Amino acid sequence: MTSILLNEIQEQGDALARLLAEESANVERIAEKIRARNIQYITIAARGASDNAATYGKYVFASFNRLPVALATPSLYTLYQTPPRLAGSLVIGISQSGEAPDILAVLQEAKRQNVPTLAITNFADSPFAQIADDVILQHAGAEKTIAATKTYTTQLLALALLSASLAQDRDRRRELDAVPHAVTRACAVDFAAEHIAARWREARAALVIGRGFNYATAFEVALKFKELAYVLAEPFSSADFLHGPIAVVQDGFPVIVIAPRGLVCDDLVNTARQLQSKGADVVMISDAAHALALGDSSLALSESLPEWLSPIHAVVPGQLLAYHLTRAKGYDPDHPRGLTKVTRTL
Amino acid sequence: MTSILLNEIQEQGDALARLLAEESANVERIAEKIRARNIQYITIAARGASDNAATYGKYVFASFNRLPVALATPSLYTLYQTPPRLAGSLVIGISQSGEAPDILAVLQEAKRQNVPTLAITNFADSPFAQIADDVILQHAGAEKTIAATKTYTTQLLALALLSASLAQDRDRRRELDAVPHAVTRACAVDFAAEHIAARWREARAALVIGRGFNYATAFEVALKFKELAYVLAEPFSSADFLHGPIAVVQDGFPVIVIAPRGLVCDDLVNTARQLQSKGADVVMISDAAHALALGDSSLALSESLPEWLSPIHAVVPGQLLAYHLTRAKGYDPDHPRGLTKVTRTL
Repeated sequence: MTSILLNEIQEQGDALARLLAEESANVERIAEKIRARNIQYITIAARGASDNAATYGKYVFASFNRLPVALATPSLYTLYQTPPRLAGSLVIGISQSGEAPDILAVLQEAKRQNVPTLAITNFADSPFAQIADDVILQHAGAEKTIAATKTYTTQLLALALLSASLAQDRDRRRELDAVPHAVTRACAVDFAAEHIAARWREARAALVIGRGFNYATAFEVALKFKELAYVLAEPFSSADFLHGPIAVVQDGFPVIVIAPRGLVCDDLVNTARQLQSKGADVVMISDAAHALALGDSSLALSESLPEWLSPIHAVVPGQLLAYHLTRAKGYDPDHPRGLTKVTRTL
Repeated sequence: MTSILLNEIQEQGDALARLLAEESANVERIAEKIRARNIQYITIAARGASDNAATYGKYVFASFNRLPVALATPSLYTLYQTPPRLAGSLVIGISQSGEAPDILAVLQEAKRQNVPTLAITNFADSPFAQIADDVILQHAGAEKTIAATKTYTTQLLALALLSASLAQDRDRRRELDAVPHAVTRACAVDFAAEHIAARWREARAALVIGRGFNYATAFEVALKFKELAYVLAEPFSSADFLHGPIAVVQDGFPVIVIAPRGLVCDDLVNTARQLQSKGADVVMISDAAHALALGDSSLALSESLPEWLSPIHAVVPGQLLAYHLTRAKGYDPDHPRGLTKVTRTL
């Protein structure tokens, strides 16, 4: 049986290549406009998987553009009706559907306060695209299943492209060109993921650990586990993990550690060792041999990307593991229960 | 057997009264200095329970001071060494010990960039207190157990006091005076919490739902469950919950809903109903009769506080439930495994 979700996971490389081809010039133009506004910080409004993309944005814009990022709390704009002053900020709304009403409310308030607005969405004719000063289109194509996969990775790439363009950094812009192929190659772990899923098919809870740029990856993989496989997967930074949550780990407890090469890799390797000493069943996602060697089993990234771009391919083995776990548990990955594609929160 | 943790939970009212008595004049003075700096937004750096206090700050400062809050990502200041530009920001570090090295790094960078800094800590002679321009002392007294209780609620009150003073809002300042007594009275659910703990003693996972001002409460109650009772408790906003995680709920699944009176109360009541229809075992924490009536059992707040202050007493029944669950499971609440009081993250 062909799964639509599996197809969408495998299509991600093509979607990312389309985004680069279609949006690079537009994003250059947007970046020039934003530079002229001399902003002090960025506000990002998003929910669900898009909120995980926003967390990635936090690291990218701070690291390479020296711009702090505040994640908006949409309920202040809707239920409480006490929006903060946004002077000095660029406001970015992220929503694949471009319809989320609470995120739209943040963009509307930003327009009212006359601060620059940018929408990242998959739909050119959505309310988001119509209200924002500028739009980056994701070019993910129709996403027929409910769990976001290619709409998530294209959001990450849109943010990375904006960061490189804002900084007028040609080296980093060139690094983006390797992303689509690396993402396609990351699908090679399909069989290994199926094998781990069979071992974990009775699991009802799991942990997903990441840090730095891949803190977002931990959140996104955990979200896929929850919404597809109904496993209570909790995301953690390896830093916060030492503040207590490590206590929940017991023998055989499933843990995924996102540890691509980079500055935080060894920190994650150390956390993985501590988890193993407490009996956890650790799966490493990495392109670093010493990290992969550590896992009870591992999901290897066949290509290496610079650390700041690694979240775009490091999420793929996690998506595949969530997919196979869903099937191993006898659920339908194309029709998860209790979910709708456009979430209307106020 | 007397538990130190239970004593510390019960001492919270006294600690909060001390904070108001000792710090009100100091905070008035600090607020005047900050008003003169004409800041555009606030950056808060914190980890663990203090990070949950920071989340509360996000709602308070946006709602009443129209100041957006960005939560700092300390690893950008330490491991990555790419701190963002902080111009236009007030930087607040929160740490009960005043020693957390990564949070200290954020304060040091803020000093270097010549932006105003404020430390909220329990120790007057800590590195935090020495480096920051100004200090609000928590006056919680020595916290002998490892799980933060009175050091958490005094951090919330310090932020609430600062917000009211910054806004020169005498009505809100007066509302603070009711907090210590309300917190003491919230301990009255001790017996009810023990009863629920007995029912949940086999639980290995749970959900804690809150929204708005009490989003922070959901995170803090979940943290107590993890670090004391080794239950994988995951916090959620009732808004995000509809984006997928509700799928994990099955028959008898333990869920705590934090629903004091206020603008989001009915939203939480609706979420609780949805959870019950999926078979969850729902415990409501509230002062609203219609919310309390909904729970399979409930933990009633005997006093009512204005919504913006409700997180300071609404966390108490959750602390008591975590304490009793820890004992019901046969663990030692005064000596949780795998935790140290001062967490040294870099």
